Amino acid sequence: MNALRDRVIVTVAPTGGFLTRADHPYVPTQPEEIAADVARCHGAGASMAALHARRPDDQATCDAEIYRRINDLVRERCDIVVNNSTGGGVTGDMVRTREDGTRVVDWAARLDGLGGGADTCTLDAITAYISSPYGEILMDTPPSRAAELATAMRTRGIKPEWEAFGPSHLLQEIRTFTAGEPGPHLVNMVLGLDHTFQNALPYTPAILQQMVDVLPDDSVFSVSISGAEQIRGLTHALLLGGHVRVGIEDNPCLVPGEPTENVRFVEHIVEVIERLGLQPATADEARTILGLKGALDEQ
Amino acid sequence: MNALRDRVIVTVAPTGGFLTRADHPYVPTQPEEIAADVARCHGAGASMAALHARRPDDQATCDAEIYRRINDLVRERCDIVVNNSTGGGVTGDMVRTREDGTRVVDWAARLDGLGGGADTCTLDAITAYISSPYGEILMDTPPSRAAELATAMRTRGIKPEWEAFGPSHLLQEIRTFTAGEPGPHLVNMVLGLDHTFQNALPYTPAILQQMVDVLPDDSVFSVSISGAEQIRGLTHALLLGGHVRVGIEDNPCLVPGEPTENVRFVEHIVEVIERLGLQPATADEARTILGLKGALDEQ
Amino acid sequence: MNALRDRVIVTVAPTGGFLTRADHPYVPTQPEEIAADVARCHGAGASMAALHARRPDDQATCDAEIYRRINDLVRERCDIVVNNSTGGGVTGDMVRTREDGTRVVDWAARLDGLGGGADTCTLDAITAYISSPYGEILMDTPPSRAAELATAMRTRGIKPEWEAFGPSHLLQEIRTFTAGEPGPHLVNMVLGLDHTFQNALPYTPAILQQMVDVLPDDSVFSVSISGAEQIRGLTHALLLGGHVRVGIEDNPCLVPGEPTENVRFVEHIVEVIERLGLQPATADEARTILGLKGALDEQ
Amino acid sequence: MNALRDRVIVTVAPTGGFLTRADHPYVPTQPEEIAADVARCHGAGASMAALHARRPDDQATCDAEIYRRINDLVRERCDIVVNNSTGGGVTGDMVRTREDGTRVVDWAARLDGLGGGADTCTLDAITAYISSPYGEILMDTPPSRAAELATAMRTRGIKPEWEAFGPSHLLQEIRTFTAGEPGPHLVNMVLGLDHTFQNALPYTPAILQQMVDVLPDDSVFSVSISGAEQIRGLTHALLLGGHVRVGIEDNPCLVPGEPTENVRFVEHIVEVIERLGLQPATADEARTILGLKGALDEQ
Repeated sequence: MNALRDRVIVTVAPTGGFLTRADHPYVPTQPEEIAADVARCHGAGASMAALHARRPDDQATCDAEIYRRINDLVRERCDIVVNNSTGGGVTGDMVRTREDGTRVVDWAARLDGLGGGADTCTLDAITAYISSPYGEILMDTPPSRAAELATAMRTRGIKPEWEAFGPSHLLQEIRTFTAGEPGPHLVNMVLGLDHTFQNALPYTPAILQQMVDVLPDDSVFSVSISGAEQIRGLTHALLLGGHVRVGIEDNPCLVPGEPTENVRFVEHIVEVIERLGLQPATADEARTILGLKGALDEQ
Repeated sequence: MNALRDRVIVTVAPTGGFLTRADHPYVPTQPEEIAADVARCHGAGASMAALHARRPDDQATCDAEIYRRINDLVRERCDIVVNNSTGGGVTGDMVRTREDGTRVVDWAARLDGLGGGADTCTLDAITAYISSPYGEILMDTPPSRAAELATAMRTRGIKPEWEAFGPSHLLQEIRTFTAGEPGPHLVNMVLGLDHTFQNALPYTPAILQQMVDVLPDDSVFSVSISGAEQIRGLTHALLLGGHVRVGIEDNPCLVPGEPTENVRFVEHIVEVIERLGLQPATADEARTILGLKGALDEQ
Repeated sequence: MNALRDRVIVTVAPTGGFLTRADHPYVPTQPEEIAADVARCHGAGASMAALHARRPDDQATCDAEIYRRINDLVRERCDIVVNNSTGGGVTGDMVRTREDGTRVVDWAARLDGLGGGADTCTLDAITAYISSPYGEILMDTPPSRAAELATAMRTRGIKPEWEAFGPSHLLQEIRTFTAGEPGPHLVNMVLGLDHTFQNALPYTPAILQQMVDVLPDDSVFSVSISGAEQIRGLTHALLLGGHVRVGIEDNPCLVPGEPTENVRFVEHIVEVIERLGLQPATADEARTILGLKGALDEQ
Repeated sequence: MNALRDRVIVTVAPTGGFLTRADHPYVPTQPEEIAADVARCHGAGASMAALHARRPDDQATCDAEIYRRINDLVRERCDIVVNNSTGGGVTGDMVRTREDGTRVVDWAARLDGLGGGADTCTLDAITAYISSPYGEILMDTPPSRAAELATAMRTRGIKPEWEAFGPSHLLQEIRTFTAGEPGPHLVNMVLGLDHTFQNALPYTPAILQQMVDVLPDDSVFSVSISGAEQIRGLTHALLLGGHVRVGIEDNPCLVPGEPTENVRFVEHIVEVIERLGLQPATADEARTILGLKGALDEQ
């Protein structure tokens, strides 16, 4: 693996759970669109795709069949590592209104996301209100559910991608639920959602540094940053030895006011990577770095 | 206020929401016990009392009448600044079981805590599961409720004591809800509850420093630390210009295995304060530092 | 000046005091060579040139006439800001052997460097042994000499470029000798010379951050880094709001083992600058940022 | 050694190289005075004595015979670990005027300090001007002399106490000259001399933390702080796992304006140590922590 220490996994998150074509001219939402876009990004240097499923009406879902169809179409086109979200979104199948009128992200719907055959799935061990255009919606994940989700993934051979919105997620849930499990553990640090998610943090150099300082042993980290600080923050992540995620899910515009295609984000961060003396990992190299089945060193 | 910069507010938290006499020989739970204990602590240098109410059966409550009785008895004995918890506890009146069997800290019960006539009340703008001996219980505070609680306090002339369990609470809720409000803002940093509360953090020097670095403007901070690192962490807080909280609520034993009286905690931290060239604030000085009604500079 | 906050001054240091053509195929050492090389670098985005004079035999000197000839030739070709070194080197005119056999950088020779008509000159308020191939040589600068050098520069209308090899230079000499003087103060942080200069430090993210944290008020900083960490460290400097210096003086090879032309270093760092959403300053913009005579806002 | 991790070595530095009885009513300068004072400090909890010799006229010296007499008198009274300075001072035997009129700390005089039979000696691998009341005096220690001093100590069975005035001393000289040598290595961090010594740093929490972060492997560190921040800084050092030095050499007055006896400094810091749940080491425990001959675990 040492031979790969100058290789950077570029993840593309092309879709997310929120935007539709009405919001952004380049966001792919349906399976064929997503697969075509991911293949272009793979050609530009992306080695992992962080995918969200959408219903035919573009509302959010974690429907296993839709995920399976996306994943199959992607894999027909390229060997990119496939990640499926189990967080989903705050529309469509993902939100349930309780009898008292409060709204929650539906737990059963989240679990459905495990059924699409992904290599890795997001694991949000997070309890927080999301302040959405549709009101306050609870992401309801007590520790018992986080444990259930981690077990379900491992039973299916899926590697969890732990989402860390702040140091407490690293020091509590991620440390607890990775202890004793085979590594490397994959952590995605999600910064810049502080206007939307409780407990989320903005990107600042000090915050990213502190989160890196408390990573669990034997972990591999990637960073995704929402908003205008994205490229600067990802460049900082590269200097700290991290991997990077780009794409319309995190930031619709590379230059403020100019909606950007996913492949352009990939090209841009690859240019930064190369000028720092690093190289984008191939999908095979990404599998080796992440310890995924099918990695080169297993063949 | 500059003249008071070497004065330290020592808060005593004598009771908390959990322990009973069966657990700890010195914990005061009923109004007369609490008032007598607080008066002793005031004599030893405490200038603020962080009080929890209990029902006659020692279970947790935020009942306004019980709070009023405690506060009256305390004020008969000394002029200490009175703080009442609106978090309460995870037993008695504070927990409600919903129709789906999940358990939450009851919102109406939390609001009751405002009715006891305190100078300051705790404001936990926090959504998190508490892993208690009685199961996972949700502290359910969307931003809309945090705003409601802040407004209710200010309407009643109560200064909020913002509880910060981590940097996100400082950067989100506390920054948002203190913006435009008259200061100084009172923040209590609560560290060491990471085994119990989601999103809570352990005390480490780096974590406390980072939280101090993101305090809102015009704020006064105190630190409370659960567990064996208490005195070291509070000493660190003193070096950073902070105020300190001690007492059985946070740490039952000054020396591991030896249950300790509240007054002994106060005496111990006062000894540290004095050896650092500082002095415990009087209650009048505390009112001035906190900008409370009745402060010396208003007379 | 706010309008220029996304502008980065790229300084090229083409020559240094050590290397000759025998060491590096692209190092310019004689006036015409230097001027031609600087003009190419200016065309690629450099707005300041940090120049060392050499004797006709390529040994180090601070001879005012040689500096004047270099500066004139440079200014015939472009409007780049001209910086002359008063440190010089450890060969030629710059080293003197004392009666006891010990060797020092000659003080009178250093002062000569002020006479070439530069816009800014380096000011090394540094006492340290340099471990050179020619033995241990003392850079001998007591505080009284640092004061003398600062006064001599200001008398001649030269802006000092304070060289900071570590936090003590910022907290002592630079803070002391810039106090009460009109800003902005120009600081160049020199990292990576720790194998050669006493009191020098390597580049690490923590060291650069700490030095930025103790910059004097109203200062503008640039960073130069010797060795293989150069581009990563300069990228870090850009994220921290700093300006950058590149060139053969600091690093002979952009890729290890491949001697690199100065213009290629400038092109490379400009590519990084642009991908971070910043732009290289023009020479006019650099003059404005540095508060130099001839700046746009004086016209 | 693990059993000793809550033990703190309190070093007393009773004399220093500067003050005389005319400056401070309690400073001991002659052998009998020093020995009596050190014995009192040992009784109060000190386990190491950092000693400076003085001539009969109270001017500074490193005369081996005077050191030997002090050390013998101290050892007659108690078993404290004995440290002798090889820095000396800026008066008396320690300063030499060169032919060009500049003044240096005399190298031969510094070496003399090794002859007094100490357990440890200070090793200042430092080149810097000292701004003294007697003018600028050069502490002249090129790397070759630092190596010579380290070898001379080890040949005599003396453990070097490396003086670190800043991170560069730790990252350069101390790292270089302890590499491959048997540990533990003893480092004394000297902060607060920034108004006197080039390259020295003030005590700030960030500076002390950064120096601790770059300690060499297998090292034991102590901190001494000149000036009014002494007790706060030493308390910080205790929180970071360090040992502490007090005494008139570093700070003449525990309370500003009130000259203080050495034993009172020791008592004061011992009170802080105990309130942090730590204990002052005995001299035997100090020998074990430092790996000195005569340590308990060798018997």
